[in-house]
Amino acid sequence: MLNKEIYIRRRKTLLEKMKGQTGIIVFIGNVESPAQYRDNCYKWRQDSNWLYFFGLDEPRFAAVLDIDSAEETLYADDFDVDDIIWTGPMPSVRSQAESVGIYKTDRYDKLSWVVSEAIIKGRPVHFLPASRYYNALKIASLVGIEPNEAFISGKSGCPKASEALVKAVISMRLVKEAEEIKLIDEAGVIGQEMHSVARKGIRLGRIEQEIVGEMESVALSKGWGVSFPTILTQHGEIFHCHSHECPIEPGKLLVVDAGVESNEHYASDFTRTYPTGGKFTQKQRDIYQIVYDCNNLAFSLTKPGAAYLDVHLAAAAHMLDSLKSLGLVSGNVDDMVAEGVAGLFMPHGLGHNIGLDVHDMEDLGENLVGYDDDQKRSPQLGLGSLRMARRLQKGNFISNEPGIYFIPALIEKWKEEGTGRGFVNFDRLEKYYDFGGIRLEDDILVTEDGARRTGNGRLPISPEEVEQAMAND
Amino acid sequence: MLNKEIYIRRRKTLLEKMKGQTGIIVFIGNVESPAQYRDNCYKWRQDSNWLYFFGLDEPRFAAVLDIDSAEETLYADDFDVDDIIWTGPMPSVRSQAESVGIYKTDRYDKLSWVVSEAIIKGRPVHFLPASRYYNALKIASLVGIEPNEAFISGKSGCPKASEALVKAVISMRLVKEAEEIKLIDEAGVIGQEMHSVARKGIRLGRIEQEIVGEMESVALSKGWGVSFPTILTQHGEIFHCHSHECPIEPGKLLVVDAGVESNEHYASDFTRTYPTGGKFTQKQRDIYQIVYDCNNLAFSLTKPGAAYLDVHLAAAAHMLDSLKSLGLVSGNVDDMVAEGVAGLFMPHGLGHNIGLDVHDMEDLGENLVGYDDDQKRSPQLGLGSLRMARRLQKGNFISNEPGIYFIPALIEKWKEEGTGRGFVNFDRLEKYYDFGGIRLEDDILVTEDGARRTGNGRLPISPEEVEQAMAND
Repeated sequence: MLNKEIYIRRRKTLLEKMKGQTGIIVFIGNVESPAQYRDNCYKWRQDSNWLYFFGLDEPRFAAVLDIDSAEETLYADDFDVDDIIWTGPMPSVRSQAESVGIYKTDRYDKLSWVVSEAIIKGRPVHFLPASRYYNALKIASLVGIEPNEAFISGKSGCPKASEALVKAVISMRLVKEAEEIKLIDEAGVIGQEMHSVARKGIRLGRIEQEIVGEMESVALSKGWGVSFPTILTQHGEIFHCHSHECPIEPGKLLVVDAGVESNEHYASDFTRTYPTGGKFTQKQRDIYQIVYDCNNLAFSLTKPGAAYLDVHLAAAAHMLDSLKSLGLVSGNVDDMVAEGVAGLFMPHGLGHNIGLDVHDMEDLGENLVGYDDDQKRSPQLGLGSLRMARRLQKGNFISNEPGIYFIPALIEKWKEEGTGRGFVNFDRLEKYYDFGGIRLEDDILVTEDGARRTGNGRLPISPEEVEQAMAND
Repeated sequence: MLNKEIYIRRRKTLLEKMKGQTGIIVFIGNVESPAQYRDNCYKWRQDSNWLYFFGLDEPRFAAVLDIDSAEETLYADDFDVDDIIWTGPMPSVRSQAESVGIYKTDRYDKLSWVVSEAIIKGRPVHFLPASRYYNALKIASLVGIEPNEAFISGKSGCPKASEALVKAVISMRLVKEAEEIKLIDEAGVIGQEMHSVARKGIRLGRIEQEIVGEMESVALSKGWGVSFPTILTQHGEIFHCHSHECPIEPGKLLVVDAGVESNEHYASDFTRTYPTGGKFTQKQRDIYQIVYDCNNLAFSLTKPGAAYLDVHLAAAAHMLDSLKSLGLVSGNVDDMVAEGVAGLFMPHGLGHNIGLDVHDMEDLGENLVGYDDDQKRSPQLGLGSLRMARRLQKGNFISNEPGIYFIPALIEKWKEEGTGRGFVNFDRLEKYYDFGGIRLEDDILVTEDGARRTGNGRLPISPEEVEQAMAND
């Protein structure tokens, strides 16, 4: 937990940003999440918005901030001696509240009284979209909507939630504070250690899962755990491949996309791609070099005032220009960018916000988080998946993760439907059907006049550095 | 996944056990469980009852078994090419259904039609209690109850669920099949390897969390992960202590309670207790020896026909008799057992069922799972927490986990309230307030004429073996 003054300051700022509104704000902390059933749960993880404003990292808290009176109340139940056998001595709700600067507390079940009272008096009840099913159930029962209505729906948000509140929270969490930046760098260091362990673990014949266990060990020994289910696959062209049963085979590319969530719950998220035998083939190296150059180009363009949408487009243009040199596409690069041809090779966006969540604040609605008045979400494949398009500000913490993939099913679909016709050299692409994919990702922080990578230096990334590191492992 | 014939056989047996009933049985598989929000989930884990009867280890399946016609239908949605970018090529719903012997499939949303049709026709709709919030929401919307009514409530069960179905499922899952026993032994071997890694990691000054990460690495490299959040604590008197921030201190007892869930989703669950410096003090050794003897005694009494409740009571009697020799209690042992004095030292039960869940089938109601007509749940502390009291059958797979703890808050409570007065020597117990606790747990399988421990031999457990192993580490 951070210093109590930080939570007090954040809640004060939130209420200032909510000026012009009236009523109450309700925050629901998480409860334990059943893995098998309610008495055997996944590892405890608090709600990120709760962590940001209230810090208390235990289940079953709620809070109400009164916009009009600025009164703050924490709702939770004290433990009794029967609980103590299972949990050990627990601090009282009152002392926990005081540790984050709140001086009024009440029983958890009183929350519904307070919300009902506000509704009866016609006072608006502001809440954020739900992040989990329990929270959706709880909000639904408090304010009288259906549980499904408490979630965001698609990329646009949650019509029943308070847009004013969502926007206020996003504006705060988008710009990382000095205290957060320190924690972000620490998460970077642990994430990089995970990747070093993974790289050292690559040997032909080993089962992928063995390497996953070794790298996740670092996340568990030094942090809360992984910030998302680890991707470690020789099928980089499958974005969310969570199967790890294959042995490492010669001549393949191994994509490792993983990061830690630190004990303080800040995420890191890095991707590297390795030649399984330690040396790239020329064909692999040609594509790898393009992705590497796109990563460096995007980093060089990242600075306050630049829209990350434009950084994505610049990387896409460079990618297409380079693929043109290899004869895989042809035509005018600007035309290809406008037509969205890059989406065939990189059907995802250049990056996303990172913070308490690895895709920061995604529960609040991607468009509100990642887009501002300047940018509109594109309907194109790839660009349309860009999660962070905003004009950058100092303190934004984002991923930079270009990639090139050869996805046979997608290429065949474009060919059949005529998408990219005249630009894409489909015949030549057939030679890449067993190529897999390459992605190279660093976490970057927008600074006063540019950007810097987080963590401890940069993981080996140029083709030469990677081969050298693997030779030394 | 197991051979398709096994799933066919299990469903056939279930329908036979449901003879006398009419209507349909609805099974709801799990969906992904949000860690941060619905697009960043915890590691995927299927519902155990679904795994048992349908095997398919992917999200968002449901099934209906018609009791009257014996018709089986699987409900799920096929992937389209947009999904394939994220998930890779996926087998069709039809081929997945066929792989477990089901030949009729329909869209997921058709499930609500089929259930509504049954309700309109007045046919009973049998369902199991929900294991997670999503499943509760889904069942509630299908059959028109409140989500909270879809869960078990307390130890007794879920009045809205089908008791006939619950009892039929329990009767099957309680007795492990040959195919399961093989997987159970494999989970035992991995769980024991976790413990060996933990033991080797114990060194004064290390942070507990570092050891946890190392042992969980084994679970992830060789299995699905941990079968429950690891307990590794120098506060063994706190049963569910999941805080791992302390350095290993001299003179303490370190309780390590952990197991793997294998890739096939069978659990193991072992506990060992180590002197942090590698040598027991005499005071520690005296208590340790009692727990060790209780474990051996309980194992020797475990056989078909014996009630595990009686095994618990025999262990409790031995424990009290030994504590009497140490002067911590006094009086007639039978009287002390009858009064529940053992609960002060061991406020939990001797064991629980293990299988696809580490506390097997706990979502179906503890009393129905762990008790039969012969046994009634005791209101006493300790014995009242016994999860498995049944008369044992060949094929039961259970934990044997006696423990002794000195819990200052509990001792003070008994002293104040007069509980155990005349038996408990409260004054002498004060010298044990900083002792912590000891638990020793093996997983055991009930055989034809007795029991055997699962895994690969037995982890070092006698005081001599433990000290010797730690000296060699």
